[in-house]
Parts: sequence; structure tokens; C-alpha cells
Amino acid sequence: QSLKIGLVPADGIGREVIPAARAAIEALGSDIPKPEFVDLLAGFELFTRTGTALPDETVEALKECDCALFGSVSSPSKRVTGYSSPIVALRKKLDLYANIRPVVSVAPNPNDKPSVDLIVVRENTECLYVKQEEIKSTESGREARAIRLITERASARIGRMAFELARARPRKHLTIIHKSNVLSVTDGLFRETVRAIPKQNPGRYDDVTIAEQLVDSAVYRLFREPQIYDVMVAPNLYGDIISDAAAALVGSLGLVPSINAGDSFVMGEPVHGSAPDIAGKNIANPIASIRSAALMLRHLGYGAPADRLDKAVDQVIREGQVLTPDLGGKATTQEALDAVLRKL
Amino acid sequence: QSLKIGLVPADGIGREVIPAARAAIEALGSDIPKPEFVDLLAGFELFTRTGTALPDETVEALKECDCALFGSVSSPSKRVTGYSSPIVALRKKLDLYANIRPVVSVAPNPNDKPSVDLIVVRENTECLYVKQEEIKSTESGREARAIRLITERASARIGRMAFELARARPRKHLTIIHKSNVLSVTDGLFRETVRAIPKQNPGRYDDVTIAEQLVDSAVYRLFREPQIYDVMVAPNLYGDIISDAAAALVGSLGLVPSINAGDSFVMGEPVHGSAPDIAGKNIANPIASIRSAALMLRHLGYGAPADRLDKAVDQVIREGQVLTPDLGGKATTQEALDAVLRKL
Ligand SMILES: CC(C)[C@H](C(=O)O)[C@@H](O)C(=O)O
Ligand SMILES: CC(C)[C@H](C(=O)O)[C@@H](O)C(=O)O
Repeated sequence: QSLKIGLVPADGIGREVIPAARAAIEALGSDIPKPEFVDLLAGFELFTRTGTALPDETVEALKECDCALFGSVSSPSKRVTGYSSPIVALRKKLDLYANIRPVVSVAPNPNDKPSVDLIVVRENTECLYVKQEEIKSTESGREARAIRLITERASARIGRMAFELARARPRKHLTIIHKSNVLSVTDGLFRETVRAIPKQNPGRYDDVTIAEQLVDSAVYRLFREPQIYDVMVAPNLYGDIISDAAAALVGSLGLVPSINAGDSFVMGEPVHGSAPDIAGKNIANPIASIRSAALMLRHLGYGAPADRLDKAVDQVIREGQVLTPDLGGKATTQEALDAVLRKL
Repeated sequence: QSLKIGLVPADGIGREVIPAARAAIEALGSDIPKPEFVDLLAGFELFTRTGTALPDETVEALKECDCALFGSVSSPSKRVTGYSSPIVALRKKLDLYANIRPVVSVAPNPNDKPSVDLIVVRENTECLYVKQEEIKSTESGREARAIRLITERASARIGRMAFELARARPRKHLTIIHKSNVLSVTDGLFRETVRAIPKQNPGRYDDVTIAEQLVDSAVYRLFREPQIYDVMVAPNLYGDIISDAAAALVGSLGLVPSINAGDSFVMGEPVHGSAPDIAGKNIANPIASIRSAALMLRHLGYGAPADRLDKAVDQVIREGQVLTPDLGGKATTQEALDAVLRKL
């Protein structure tokens, strides 16, 4: 038996951190089925060379894989006709409806509670990400419109995912993020649908406490009192913003992993972007990608090897000897990876 | 000559902080034309009593005023048929297209540079705030859609406002906030339109440096390196979120003022909400409202009395003797107000 893992480094530092994650997976040895890696193309750079940001072959090949790791995509600095973000497209094409982003600080002592320990559960297929936009000329200039779509179906499935995650955690607390004081219909639907889930599953979520927060005040409170959050569930765009905000609390985006999960596929992805300013310099932090690999493996049921990866990473962070520049250190990507591998 | 000021405390702590701002304005004496206050109704509580959140009389009376102060509105805890936020409506009805939110920390020493010193310039009339939403039933459940509107006209006028503010500041730096890697059409239009402004005003903005940032990474960097920002210009919803994020940096939402400004009217408004948890307890921080009054007066051309108010507030914060609970003190709203009045 083998584990077929698609690798889509895409742009910028994605090309440095995905190979690091691959090496970390390989180092797990017989803890997991023998990994078989499939190198796949996507990205803005690919688009500028070939006119395609996400080749059909990549999508088809991913469908043959057991799981995948995605790197990061660069954003065009101007509007580019025909270009559309391959990660947004992949999430939809593979119906990876849940973007799960745990943000956890590493306490100085392994027995201490981390000061930040939350999971952002972001809806991954709709909201403004449906990309239904149009523009027209009028007498007073151009007018552009985008559709923000919120469906009961997508809100219910992301809500269930969030409740499932919440009930499995010690605090069992779920905060629903919305802006229904302005978007009473769309965010109203999201909020109501998530709130209705316990009723549809009598008994199952009795222990889960539920709170809600407007997105603006959620960001404010995230910075002031992050400990109030346990699991946060949010429509797509709010989830995007909130997970970056939460990442700032733990020291670096270079530490924060995610998975894009559907009912039949999972794709790990570091939360950071392609970081063009440091790309190609071998100084990108590989930890977010290594942790994304761990999340992906755990999601597939390989909890023990995932824990091994996480513990190795935590040790390296705790010791603070081999850190990349985003964490104030001087280590290269390779050195940071080697430090993790030594702890495995 | 008199200065006719509409007062709309609306809900919750708005009813405590707007009277405080009124008292601060009255204390300015002959520095400004004799203020004449007009008490006006609006709010969610009014809606629950009367079925109207924003009476026509309030809107008409405001049109007869020289300026206004608005408090805060409570958000319904469930979807309420017929209710719509009065502040969102007022911004549109009075065409107060710019929401200007300076976020400035008070340095311990009056001669030191503040560690955070930025202005969020938020477009105030469109984006998802047009509230064009609809919902329908389908075979797979309900589907809700909202329109996000971005026009060239509104982007240009908020952009001009931002460039004007930037050129008047020492650093003369403008950051355009958008998410055009996903919303290439709507945010693409916003970004292009703002970027085109210097070309339309040759010479005027030559000294202004321009940067841009995706909204998610803007929130991240706001927490990590707030000093990179000077003036930030953003579509409505991003501006809403970013100004709350920035408020977290200076210690409390209770410190952050704003004005809603149009070409012929200005309305001051604290950035904080109605804070139902502390409403009626006389412990709300009046500083955001007093500073909003100062901003409003400065916008009307009364720079010297506005400076007097700001300096008095800064002194009270610096001395740290009379602070409300949000700042870690024990003072009441009245005591905090009195402390400011003593410094005037
Ligand atoms: C690159 C971009 C399209 C993407 C998003 O907005 O989802 C990124 O910010 C993320 O968080 O994964
Ligand atoms: C109360 C609400 C409608 C409002 C907004 O979203 O604009 C508030 O958050 C603000 O920032 O003034």
C-alpha cells in the first residue's frame, strides 16, 4: 500500500517550503504507507509563461491522488485578463469546502497551556470567492458588481465541521463570525444555519457552548483577548482575514498551517503567501508547510506520525536555536528543516 | 452666529458618551460659534418601540444642522424583519462618503513620536453596505446573495480624500487596501481608480508615496509593524475591519474617533459600538466621542479649539490617573469627562 501525494508548489516560496514538507513526510519512514509524490504545476508564473494558471492535467492528476500539498500563489500587480487564482479554483473544483486553520502558540514549557490555541474553520467555496463579477460603463463612470453567495447547504456543512471540531476539544466552544448587522440576509442565513445544527443532531453537541461575534469586533478581540476563542467558524472572506489576524498573534505567518478538506480529499497548504520579497533566498520558514503536512496526515487518520511531526516542530521552536528570519533567527530553510528532521 | 449641532446618541453607551462630547464642546466657550444642540432620535431600541430605526424627522433635522454627532447602534440578536441599521442609512442619505478614522497612540512624553499614527480612510456608501440582498428557496436549501458594488465615482472621491490627507501629513504615504487577487473586477476598479488620481491632478501628489496591500495581509502587518502605515484607503467593509484592528493597537476602541464626511456635511462618531454589556453603568469611555467632536470641529475649520480638546485628552491619558475600565482604570464616564474639562 502506498500514499499518493500530489505536490503543487506553485509560486515564490511555495517552491522552497513544499520540498521541505516532502522531506519531512519522507522522514516518517514506516509510520505511514510509502509516500509516492506527484509533482504538479500551477501558479501565476505558470500563467505568464503558458497562459494557464491551473492546467487540467493538474486537476485530473490530483483526483488520482490520496491527498496533496499546495504551496502559494503570487498575485498579479495589475489586473490581468484571463487570470484567475488557481488555489481558489482548486478549492472549488475538488469541493474542498472546509479550510481548517489551527493557530497555536508554542508555550515555553511543553506542559504549559499555549496562550493562543484556536482553530479558524473557514467556508471555502462561496461568499465573494464565487467570483461572479461584472463591470459596465455608465454616465458617471464605470460600475463593478460582485455577488456574495451564501447557501444553506454550504453553511450547514461548514457548521457541522466546526461543531465536530469543537466537541472534540477540551473547551468545546464555538464562535460564529458574521456581519449580520449589515448583511442581515446573507450573514443572517449563515448564522441561523450554523445555530440550527445542534437541533438537527439531538444530543451530539450538548456540551458545545456557542457565541457569536461581528467580524470587525472579532478582529479587535482577537488581538486583545485571544484566549476567548476556541473554534471560530466564518464565511470565506472573514475567515481569510481572521486567520491572518490570528497568525500575527503567534509570531509569524510562517508558522500557520491549514488544510482544505472535502468529504473525499484533503489538501494541506501553508497560510502564508508566495512572499516574492524573500523567494529564492532559501530563508522561507518551512514550518507552516511541515505542519500542513501533519494536519493532512492526521485528517487521513495517521494521527501518530502527525503528532511526531508537530512535536519535532514544537521542540525546534521552543529551543529557539535554529529559526528562520521571520522568527528573528538566521537559519536557512534547509537548516530549519534539518533541525526538525533531527528531532523526529 | 451659532453652530447648530445635531446629537443622535442612539443606543447603549451612545447615550452616555454623546452627552459627554456635548459638555466638552460647550466648555470650548468663545473659541467656536455658540453651539446650539438639537436632540434627535434613532436606533435599534427606538425601532423596537416604534417600528422605525431612523425617523424622517431625524434626517430632515440633520439637514438643517451644521454638523452632528452620532453615538452607537445596537445589533439585533436575531434577524428582525424591517430593521435596517440607521447609521448605515444616514451615511448614505447624507452622502457622507468618507469615514475618516485616525488611530494614534499617546506617547508617554509629549515630544515623542507616537508608536501608532495612521488614518483609515474608509469608503462609506457602497461595497456590501448597499444592502442589496435577496434569498430564495432551491431544491438544495435556501440561497442568499448580496451585491458588492464598487463604482469609479465613489472610488475616485474617496481616493482624492485619501491623497489630500496623505499630502498634508509628514510621511505622505498612502496604502491602498484591496483583495484584487480574488475580486479582480470590483477591487481591481477600486485599486486602479485610486492609483489614477495623481495623473488627474498633475503635480499635486508628487510627494505622496503609494503602496498597496491585500486586506488579509494588511491586518497581519498592522499587528506586526503598524509603523509602516500612514494613510490607508479601503473599500467600506475592509475599512470597517481594519479600523477595529488598528484600534486594538492603541489600547481600546474607547479611544478611537471618526468622522463621516461628505462635501457639505460632517458627522462625528466614536468607532466603538453600543456595548450593551456596560451600557447604563456610567463607565463607558467618553474619549472616542470627545475626539470625534474635535475631528468634526477641525473638519469645519475650527482647528484651534479641536487641538485644545485633543491636547486635554492626551494629557489625561498620559497622566493615567483618571481612566475608565477599558483602559484599566476605575473612573466613571463623568469623572473621565471632568478630567478632560479640567485640562481645557
Ligand atoms: C491567495 C489567496 C487567493 C488566498 C485566499 O484569499 O484565500 C490566501 O489569502 C489564503 O488565505 O489562502
Ligand atoms: C454598526 C455597524 C453597522 C458599523 C459598520 O459596520 O459600519 C460599525 O461597525 C462601524 O464601524 O461604524
